[in-house]
Amino acid sequence: MTRTTKFASAALLAGGLVMAAPASADEGMWTFDSFPADKMRADYGWAPDQAWLDRVKSGAVRLTGGCSASFVSPEGLILTNHHCVASCLFDNSTAAMDYLDKGHVANRRDEELKCPGQQAEVMTRITDVTNDIKATFTGLTGEALTKARNAKIAEIESAGCPDTATTRCQVVTLFGGGQYKLYSYRKYSDVRLAWSPEDRAATFGGDPDNFNFPRYSMDASFLRAYENGQPVKTPKHLKWNPRAPKAGEATFVVGNPGSTSRLYTQSQLAFEREVRLPITLTVLSELRGRLITAMDQNAEREREGLDTLGGIENSLKVYIGRVKALNDPAFTKKLADAELALRAKSAGNSDLGDPWADVDAAVSEYRSLYLPLRFTQPSGSLYGYASTLVFAAQERVKPNGERLRGYTDSALPLTEKRLLDDAPVYPWLDELMMGWSLSKAREYLGVDDADSKLLLGKESPEQLSERLVNGTQLADPAVRKALWDGGLAAIEASDDPMIQYALRLSDRQRALDKMSDEAYSGPLAIAGGKLADARFAAYGDSLYPDATFTLRISYGQVKGWEERGNMVPIATTMGGTFERATGNAPFDVAPGFAANQDKIDMAAAYDFVTTNDIIGGNSGSPVIDKDGTVIGAAFDGNIHSLGGNYGYDGKLNRTVVVSTDAVQEALENIYPAPALVKELGAK
Amino acid sequence: MTRTTKFASAALLAGGLVMAAPASADEGMWTFDSFPADKMRADYGWAPDQAWLDRVKSGAVRLTGGCSASFVSPEGLILTNHHCVASCLFDNSTAAMDYLDKGHVANRRDEELKCPGQQAEVMTRITDVTNDIKATFTGLTGEALTKARNAKIAEIESAGCPDTATTRCQVVTLFGGGQYKLYSYRKYSDVRLAWSPEDRAATFGGDPDNFNFPRYSMDASFLRAYENGQPVKTPKHLKWNPRAPKAGEATFVVGNPGSTSRLYTQSQLAFEREVRLPITLTVLSELRGRLITAMDQNAEREREGLDTLGGIENSLKVYIGRVKALNDPAFTKKLADAELALRAKSAGNSDLGDPWADVDAAVSEYRSLYLPLRFTQPSGSLYGYASTLVFAAQERVKPNGERLRGYTDSALPLTEKRLLDDAPVYPWLDELMMGWSLSKAREYLGVDDADSKLLLGKESPEQLSERLVNGTQLADPAVRKALWDGGLAAIEASDDPMIQYALRLSDRQRALDKMSDEAYSGPLAIAGGKLADARFAAYGDSLYPDATFTLRISYGQVKGWEERGNMVPIATTMGGTFERATGNAPFDVAPGFAANQDKIDMAAAYDFVTTNDIIGGNSGSPVIDKDGTVIGAAFDGNIHSLGGNYGYDGKLNRTVVVSTDAVQEALENIYPAPALVKELGAK
Repeated sequence: MTRTTKFASAALLAGGLVMAAPASADEGMWTFDSFPADKMRADYGWAPDQAWLDRVKSGAVRLTGGCSASFVSPEGLILTNHHCVASCLFDNSTAAMDYLDKGHVANRRDEELKCPGQQAEVMTRITDVTNDIKATFTGLTGEALTKARNAKIAEIESAGCPDTATTRCQVVTLFGGGQYKLYSYRKYSDVRLAWSPEDRAATFGGDPDNFNFPRYSMDASFLRAYENGQPVKTPKHLKWNPRAPKAGEATFVVGNPGSTSRLYTQSQLAFEREVRLPITLTVLSELRGRLITAMDQNAEREREGLDTLGGIENSLKVYIGRVKALNDPAFTKKLADAELALRAKSAGNSDLGDPWADVDAAVSEYRSLYLPLRFTQPSGSLYGYASTLVFAAQERVKPNGERLRGYTDSALPLTEKRLLDDAPVYPWLDELMMGWSLSKAREYLGVDDADSKLLLGKESPEQLSERLVNGTQLADPAVRKALWDGGLAAIEASDDPMIQYALRLSDRQRALDKMSDEAYSGPLAIAGGKLADARFAAYGDSLYPDATFTLRISYGQVKGWEERGNMVPIATTMGGTFERATGNAPFDVAPGFAANQDKIDMAAAYDFVTTNDIIGGNSGSPVIDKDGTVIGAAFDGNIHSLGGNYGYDGKLNRTVVVSTDAVQEALENIYPAPALVKELGAK
Repeated sequence: MTRTTKFASAALLAGGLVMAAPASADEGMWTFDSFPADKMRADYGWAPDQAWLDRVKSGAVRLTGGCSASFVSPEGLILTNHHCVASCLFDNSTAAMDYLDKGHVANRRDEELKCPGQQAEVMTRITDVTNDIKATFTGLTGEALTKARNAKIAEIESAGCPDTATTRCQVVTLFGGGQYKLYSYRKYSDVRLAWSPEDRAATFGGDPDNFNFPRYSMDASFLRAYENGQPVKTPKHLKWNPRAPKAGEATFVVGNPGSTSRLYTQSQLAFEREVRLPITLTVLSELRGRLITAMDQNAEREREGLDTLGGIENSLKVYIGRVKALNDPAFTKKLADAELALRAKSAGNSDLGDPWADVDAAVSEYRSLYLPLRFTQPSGSLYGYASTLVFAAQERVKPNGERLRGYTDSALPLTEKRLLDDAPVYPWLDELMMGWSLSKAREYLGVDDADSKLLLGKESPEQLSERLVNGTQLADPAVRKALWDGGLAAIEASDDPMIQYALRLSDRQRALDKMSDEAYSGPLAIAGGKLADARFAAYGDSLYPDATFTLRISYGQVKGWEERGNMVPIATTMGGTFERATGNAPFDVAPGFAANQDKIDMAAAYDFVTTNDIIGGNSGSPVIDKDGTVIGAAFDGNIHSLGGNYGYDGKLNRTVVVSTDAVQEALENIYPAPALVKELGAK
């Protein structure tokens, strides 16, 4: 393409200026209480001050569905990715009205769609509780340690957020046990969908283009937070800035990276490479195949399975990328070298003991627990409801400090919301998921294994899943509500076969968790703390912890990369969609794009790439410029970023962003939403 | 179980005697021209003499479908596995008569079922042609080398077997290029099925029990070789000996192990572990899933897909086992140590150069060719027919010495037979296979890759496969015959879309093969030869080469193994089937077993295990006792044997055998075949 585009000319202007800044790795998912301003200043000649950081922090939103977002108007309007609201669109859809396929523009507030299970949260405070927590388990090991720790955590969370209707508290373990921090949130449990493009506009290129770039994806949507039936007031929102990105300009991603494993020791990495990942690739690929063919049977199933298939294919691509990274000797050598360096620097530290050996021992124990832990948890939403009901009933009768983590007072409200919100259940899909997971359990555990027999009895995986899915009433939220309210007595008296099944498995699941706490989690908590101490001693405290689905900030710049000798450009244009289109799914132009082809500014910036260090969970994060305004929503990493779970490579890893320029274009000319345009305050 | 069984009491008797022999690893798939008699004599106090070896060799049969077998009567009767004839039963079946499901007992010769594509071969001679071959490529490298070598091979094969109607010649590369030997065969291209149990009797326990033991599988069948419409005379057949195995007795497996990689260097193993196996697990698992759900749709598809699914699941289990082996540090250390030892022993050999580095370089080149080589070959029987027709037409016009290997004069008869034999085609299955392979090609090559574009054009994988499968006439053997006879002119004039598609891909496929010959196969031929020389220099010439689907003999003994602290018994009984049965597939008792439960000798030996070193291709091999009589047919390895591709562990690796005792029981009391019982000459 030789077309001159907005951002291309901007890039031309900006290139010389910003690229003069020294190259930097831009690695790091920094906590807001330790942003490396000095480092950034050294690399970029500028860094945000505290006021700037406080401002963007207040506008950042976490979505409990597993995404990030930001407030972009004073009336609770939230920018996130389309793929973060796909489940909401899907749950609101019927065969007659397919919101996922058609998209949705709420012309009035009362047309905004409630999102089941979704909750928006704004972080309000971080409190260091490391000493409180560590004091509880001094001298303890194994399960005794995890019990004492969890009891203290439950206590701190309850004390921190007595009002569970509007606040939520979570103690987060950082640096694998080096720090414990209490995160407090203002929460909004009524979240509604205001605007979404058609699915094809968001997923143009489908799985083949996922994690790839150049990209042509309108992966953006708007939600709105409500309280007491009214949109919430959000004066501290971020400013919407519909413009093209400039090559080399500094960008910040503010969001909640879900999980990384960058501090893993060699034995933990070996377990991933040798055991967990090969099994995961294999069983998940089979599920993908089962679902693809099942959906191929008719249009109804095609629609009903789409959201699940999308999730599976996305995960698979992530795992394939991880396998590739851990099978790349150059990549793994860097990780091994980093461990050797830390060991060398820690050699004189006699207090330390040998935490690496402790981790090795814990991982070795975990290897023998892994298959039963993994495969005694059947899949499927109905089984999930049953299991939650059974555990909640068993846990709620205990004192807060003795409960499993998802069932403490601070965790129960979200657990309950997810259980009771009305979302459609498709029996064929539940049967497929459950049948698949049970057949894989039998395959990996072996036919003659006691856990296989517990799971299956004399039934086949197919028979059992059919019997349970057809026999259960748990698809009905009223039935779930009655069982939730009825507590343990109701559960034990229930003749619902899925409840009985979940009850039958629960003892063994608890026993396995206990063994895992004893032999793995407990020892790891101590060893992880020591490894963190070693890191702080060796490198000071300006480190960033592994991702924990809590608020982080990453800095970087708009920048392409070199792929097989060619420079990948920083951005695509809206017009590129039409050039890439083949007319065949998933490369078919969305109907809204086709219908409005004349109106669309073909030169408008579409998707762009930055060097920011992100990972799954960051989806929907605002991409913020130096001025603190929003210029896009991060929705993906490039293919190289998949190794980012274990380490960041500044040469290759990129964040993929849908630009505000493109979203504005869609709001004005493709899926018109004049009210939103006005609300966003632009033009 | 505490039941006293025939073999258990026999075991008691024999145990003390034979176990006094020193323990031995029993490793090795030996060629008949270098059986390690001294080694066996040292381990077992006895070894077969040349007459014994010649006798069993004459009775051994290779089945071109990929299995082994043996003549067991003077009238051409062949013992092999049920799973080796499943395709024959399947190809003869219709919705009205499902031979695979029901089994087949031919009461008269004219009820024996012709097996499409199947050919039986008896090895008659091995001639060393190493010097002839190596002389042709002295001083050559890369593609020039492979061309010269292949021309010489074609010439030797043609000269060795001028009568291609009854003989077949194949030059086999042993020790990765250390030796070249001409194998001559008497061939029988009319093979018919005489007796088969029900599928469920053979596959009791299905995929879950596959590669596991204790086992209850009647994995046996009888074929018959014909010539000119008459059963062939086979006076040199092996003697059928229906009896239980004895613990510790010596056993020989005589058959054709397909392929092993025990001589791989570290870089070749790394390529397997890092690239080939993870991709294979992933794509094959998805295919498995697609097929499982597709077959679930109706009984017709359930039947039509069964043979393909069985093959996929079997392969997957093999690959999963290999991944496990190559991710087991203890296992891979042994392989690494063996390479280090050979390097150390070769240090003074200045003629050698550094063949390991040469292999490293070749593998490194292959890494960049692997994805296009793998993914530019779509799957499906109809595409396979088209591709064979296209390549045959293009190759047959060339002189014999310049043709690709499957199309030389010595190879063409079997290629033609496989192409023209009438076998059913199921369009839905072809569409599924082709759609899957094309979608995986796009996934791994990338949407924008030139090969993806060549494969797909603007079509989606689903559209393209539907169009080609629906449009082609190649399911009709007469159409294939006309195109075969019509040669290149007919191919180029054909408007069959599948032919046109295969033609469109053929140039690129040839170019990739050429690149692979140049950068990989050529260099590997030289380096492999040098590595073999190094091995012979270091360890003498009493070595066994990697498996090449040519006749080998393995010695071992009837012996269980220790599994998680428990000894696995040497054999199961027929009665065990009924105890293991759950009533649900695949653990449902075959109807024939259920109907004849009163007649069956529950104490008869069923399946048993030996320490013989085998691998895929050995299926159906006669298991022979010291007297040279047949006491079973090898049909499987245990789960540990899956690492056997890379190395043999005598403590754990076991061959799984269906005993003649059980087959005799089936012939007499379950699927009665009095004529066969008489022919086998027993009782």
